[in-house]
Amino acid sequence: MTSIPIGIIVCSDRAATGVYEDRGGPAIHDYLGKVLTNNWHPVLEVIRDERAVIAATIERLADVEECCLILTTGGTGPALRDITPEATLDVCDRQLPGFGEVMRTASLAEVPTAILSRQIAAIRNKSLVINLPGKPAAIKTCLDAVFAAVPYCIDLIGGPRLETDPAYCKAFRPKQ
Amino acid sequence: MTSIPIGIIVCSDRAATGVYEDRGGPAIHDYLGKVLTNNWHPVLEVIRDERAVIAATIERLADVEECCLILTTGGTGPALRDITPEATLDVCDRQLPGFGEVMRTASLAEVPTAILSRQIAAIRNKSLVINLPGKPAAIKTCLDAVFAAVPYCIDLIGGPRLETDPAYCKAFRPKQ
Amino acid sequence: MTSIPIGIIVCSDRAATGVYEDRGGPAIHDYLGKVLTNNWHPVLEVIRDERAVIAATIERLADVEECCLILTTGGTGPALRDITPEATLDVCDRQLPGFGEVMRTASLAEVPTAILSRQIAAIRNKSLVINLPGKPAAIKTCLDAVFAAVPYCIDLIGGPRLETDPAYCKAFRPKQ
Repeated sequence: MTSIPIGIIVCSDRAATGVYEDRGGPAIHDYLGKVLTNNWHPVLEVIRDERAVIAATIERLADVEECCLILTTGGTGPALRDITPEATLDVCDRQLPGFGEVMRTASLAEVPTAILSRQIAAIRNKSLVINLPGKPAAIKTCLDAVFAAVPYCIDLIGGPRLETDPAYCKAFRPKQ
Repeated sequence: MTSIPIGIIVCSDRAATGVYEDRGGPAIHDYLGKVLTNNWHPVLEVIRDERAVIAATIERLADVEECCLILTTGGTGPALRDITPEATLDVCDRQLPGFGEVMRTASLAEVPTAILSRQIAAIRNKSLVINLPGKPAAIKTCLDAVFAAVPYCIDLIGGPRLETDPAYCKAFRPKQ
Repeated sequence: MTSIPIGIIVCSDRAATGVYEDRGGPAIHDYLGKVLTNNWHPVLEVIRDERAVIAATIERLADVEECCLILTTGGTGPALRDITPEATLDVCDRQLPGFGEVMRTASLAEVPTAILSRQIAAIRNKSLVINLPGKPAAIKTCLDAVFAAVPYCIDLIGGPRLETDPAYCKAFRPKQ
């Protein structure tokens, strides 16, 4: 059985330069390990908050590594260095506004500052890119809010069939 | 009493080529027949999922047919051929993000994959364009969620006064 | 103690030409007077609904007057003269979609026509710009929905530390 590559991009100046031990990447890895029942492996990149670098990394993970799903962590806030959504749009051609709406709504139930998140989801060819926050608890909140729709989205854009553990998340596929 | 033209655009390769019997167009026609108490008539177009064709059809229904309301069905998902929102933006100049938000929220109560819908509403001169999904049940969910605000929106952009059957939908117009 | 300048921009042809007594500006002034415990003063501008004028006023209040927060009132609807969101985007470089979503959701609990509001929030350098509706009641609804997140947003973009009266609004700052 072929292993499905899934991209995890940590966007953080401090993590990339070793000043700070990233916790977002491991939180995403752990979540995917629980939710997916496919044979899969992470393609992990820890990079600086540079728009061109983030964009080029998404592009490579989509086009060269052929990741059907690319999850970024960090860089979605209002600060000057938070540039992940812009970098995502630079290399994607269609946005899915429902992801950002639902992730913010879910996060808002926990902290009022959830409205400051500018996270988006968008598609590049056969890859779905989802921006996630940096904190592990917020990552889980966001993925819980959207993951049921992720496998069907990847079906629609021509990617591999992802299967989930229904005890953790029940993937939804409408009857045709 | 003059009859008000309302545009219904079915965006579907399969319907346009006769492979598939469209059910979205009739569902919209039926809904408008129940909700509107004005004298009105549909201007129906069944076209392929081509961005330029959809854009030109919206343009003609707005500028030549003078439809104050143009409802599209189909082409709002994440798949490559789903291009209705982009075509809509190509010929409209102001977006109304609240429509997409509320239609997705209402649909989300029914299916988790509602977040995959990229549907928008936007204005071209004196015409309000609203993207709807393809399935009749989803069309009803979306129209139920927004229709109370449609007549006042059309008042504000200089269109005819639409009246609704309050047993079906109570149009809301704020007191000035 | 230095006084913090906060911009209030009334976008209204009728108010600017004296045909109509603006009530939006005073409503915002009153709200800030209750919620903020800092020493602050308003920089008030009453201007016409001209895109270039609104954009230039936001620019000046941000760059010259150094307002960390700029609140506009009026011009967010679907009518042809409603152009405040476009003018805001003209001079801002990053949008915060959560503000518009949450303000519309809160307003929707009061009037179905809340979905017609196109209001946005965006950042220009060290200034947060938030579009508000024109009516005092709607202004309060919107500010109540978002103000808890405003001080932390201004922290993140490098502005002064705003303090709120917890009896009126409890500013939220996540623990680092």
